Amino acid sequence: MIKANDPALTSWVEYDEYSDFPIQNIPFGVGNRKGEHPRVLSAIGNFAVDLAALESLGYLKIEGLDGGVFHASSLNDMIAAGKAKWSLIRAAISELLRSDDPMGAKAQKDKFLIPLREVELKLPVEIGDYTDFYSSKEHATNVGTMFRDPDNALLPNWKHIPVGYHGRASSIVVSGTPVRRPKGQQIPPDSDTPVFGPSKLLDFELEVAFIVGSENELGSPVDIKEAEDHIFGLALFNDWSARDIQKWEYVPLGPFLGKNFASTMSPWIVTMEALEPFRVKGPEQDPEPLPYLRTTGDHSFDIELEVWMQSDSGVIQRLCQSNFKYMYWSMAQQLAHHTVNGCNLKVGDVCASGTISGPTPDSYGSMLEISWRGTKPVQLADGTERKFIQDGDTIIMHGHAEANGVRIGFGEARGLVLPALP
Amino acid sequence: MIKANDPALTSWVEYDEYSDFPIQNIPFGVGNRKGEHPRVLSAIGNFAVDLAALESLGYLKIEGLDGGVFHASSLNDMIAAGKAKWSLIRAAISELLRSDDPMGAKAQKDKFLIPLREVELKLPVEIGDYTDFYSSKEHATNVGTMFRDPDNALLPNWKHIPVGYHGRASSIVVSGTPVRRPKGQQIPPDSDTPVFGPSKLLDFELEVAFIVGSENELGSPVDIKEAEDHIFGLALFNDWSARDIQKWEYVPLGPFLGKNFASTMSPWIVTMEALEPFRVKGPEQDPEPLPYLRTTGDHSFDIELEVWMQSDSGVIQRLCQSNFKYMYWSMAQQLAHHTVNGCNLKVGDVCASGTISGPTPDSYGSMLEISWRGTKPVQLADGTERKFIQDGDTIIMHGHAEANGVRIGFGEARGLVLPALP
Repeated sequence: MIKANDPALTSWVEYDEYSDFPIQNIPFGVGNRKGEHPRVLSAIGNFAVDLAALESLGYLKIEGLDGGVFHASSLNDMIAAGKAKWSLIRAAISELLRSDDPMGAKAQKDKFLIPLREVELKLPVEIGDYTDFYSSKEHATNVGTMFRDPDNALLPNWKHIPVGYHGRASSIVVSGTPVRRPKGQQIPPDSDTPVFGPSKLLDFELEVAFIVGSENELGSPVDIKEAEDHIFGLALFNDWSARDIQKWEYVPLGPFLGKNFASTMSPWIVTMEALEPFRVKGPEQDPEPLPYLRTTGDHSFDIELEVWMQSDSGVIQRLCQSNFKYMYWSMAQQLAHHTVNGCNLKVGDVCASGTISGPTPDSYGSMLEISWRGTKPVQLADGTERKFIQDGDTIIMHGHAEANGVRIGFGEARGLVLPALP
Repeated sequence: MIKANDPALTSWVEYDEYSDFPIQNIPFGVGNRKGEHPRVLSAIGNFAVDLAALESLGYLKIEGLDGGVFHASSLNDMIAAGKAKWSLIRAAISELLRSDDPMGAKAQKDKFLIPLREVELKLPVEIGDYTDFYSSKEHATNVGTMFRDPDNALLPNWKHIPVGYHGRASSIVVSGTPVRRPKGQQIPPDSDTPVFGPSKLLDFELEVAFIVGSENELGSPVDIKEAEDHIFGLALFNDWSARDIQKWEYVPLGPFLGKNFASTMSPWIVTMEALEPFRVKGPEQDPEPLPYLRTTGDHSFDIELEVWMQSDSGVIQRLCQSNFKYMYWSMAQQLAHHTVNGCNLKVGDVCASGTISGPTPDSYGSMLEISWRGTKPVQLADGTERKFIQDGDTIIMHGHAEANGVRIGFGEARGLVLPALP
């Protein structure tokens, strides 16, 4: 059998070398043409692949899999079918789209290919719980340097624990959903009495999220050797943050209203299988973590990440360029840590990385760091400048992995900031 | 029409004056006889009232309400029908159970009354998101005194913000589910290197949770005047905490593995309507909160709360006695605060109060406070003592409101602590 990841594979669907969705990708999403019911989709080139239509045409018969999972309005049932099935589904789609067209699918392409511009993409999973980690050493160091002590920027627990906290699942929205500037309490400088109003320090956070693919029972930790088997795939994630609200509220129990007004997720989940060729060694970990967090092999992934801003003048400009491989703590370590106390993860749960900053200022993953708390405003080509995000700005995140002439892209996580309610 | 709360109401079902479930209560839960499908239940005296059976018998016809909601395995659909329906459902059940038996239901009682000892109770709602507040001034003061500075025990934001954080929904379990002692990282005294092992400082937290009854759209805050309309009812809640794990992990993003291994909820949701007669004025708030948190009228509830411990010797002993009315911040204030930034609450979401401690040591709502960090061990009648909770201990929470001869009880939130996995 030809492997779905084979770099030599080509498709009868035409796309150029910069497409996010070559035949080696086969991501999963949910969406529909206007007025139709949502269904499970994949993507190739500029087309969505309607998996419900393929199933109805008799093209997606997978032994032991109820074809109804492709007609659902979330990926949860398909994901719950298990890792072996994910692989078979990808292989079947790959076979349908291959240039040699062994299934004779091309002749029926109008029944299952939908131009992406005609598709309304939905949030791909029903999310039970959402966890946000804090796993970039550069980000944690930058924040610690700005707000605490440059000489002791990292807190004592940081190199021992993949620090994480629970976020809000209900306010995770799919790319393209506008985000309303939140109001909340803020503390003016040199005052001990808060004021109330729209956040003045609205920020993005460049993150990558993994989607839990198989659950563990309450009370049963996942061994780090099996941790990656519990991950279905990855998406881009913008953990919008209101820095002024967060600053006043977060002691001692962590961020709350400064974060839970919205998070933006990209609509396509790129599978762990598609990302297999892009494994790299992670950063050296010193001190060595406790045994339950120790791994061998490569558990980081070389994924280029970019954040762009489009201001309401129409000017588009890149704000930063980072990479998922900078993460100090791997997803395997995050998942093993999350469950080591017996906490149960469920199919569709989302775990985000935390802001992914690299070593240089142009790789910092938030406006807080890029503008260094507002002391180094970003100059935009339209003549304006930004310390934080203004109403009418759109933040757009992109990501892709590339090797051996194959480019696996993530699509985008896009959000326009609307002014606060009057 | 006779009101369901009327203190003069009596039922043809017999129960004594100490029953948690008189005809004025009519709480809601979900459960089944062994081997049967779960369905929606109420309770009276020592019986569950099978609302699915009542519906099938034609007794629960509510205009505009799909009777299927009573056959569901969670309360979510019934709750989503809206506040006006909750009231009509309670009134209809009340009418069926009244001593004058206007509906002639008594003759068919064996078809819908199930002795409570024969019922397996489930978690009553599908919980999307779970938020935990920190709203008892006495608790926050005790913790601040122990861990920070007795002269500045409350942090600067505490009297301005109903401080809260996101917890884990997946690990909320129904009363009676055993709880496994978690393992995790802890920092030994005078060391900067963590060790790994079972938590040595396992604790309970006496809390009351409210269940969200109607949702607000993302981006649309709930005005404090309407906040209580968004609450369906209340349950007892034990926010199990591993103090040693929590202490090492919680800076700077809040509690995570120290809390998310389990929380225990009582199976019966007591409606806001049933609690209406027990409104009381809350504590004086000084300084006056910001306008979005200001209320008039009585928004606290006089609910007596108790925590008991049963050790594996069989000895049962009360650990503390507190009251929901001690909360500094009301549920209305918590809900208005939670949504003021546009965060969307969904039907079935759970918001817990935080540990409810009263003014005296016998009213403290956690072992941490009762034993004052282990310095004042509790003497048990079996000759042992407790600083924190040991394997084999069962923690049992009770709650009830009482006035005009009517006692509205909450049942119990019970959890046995199992030893950590080997």
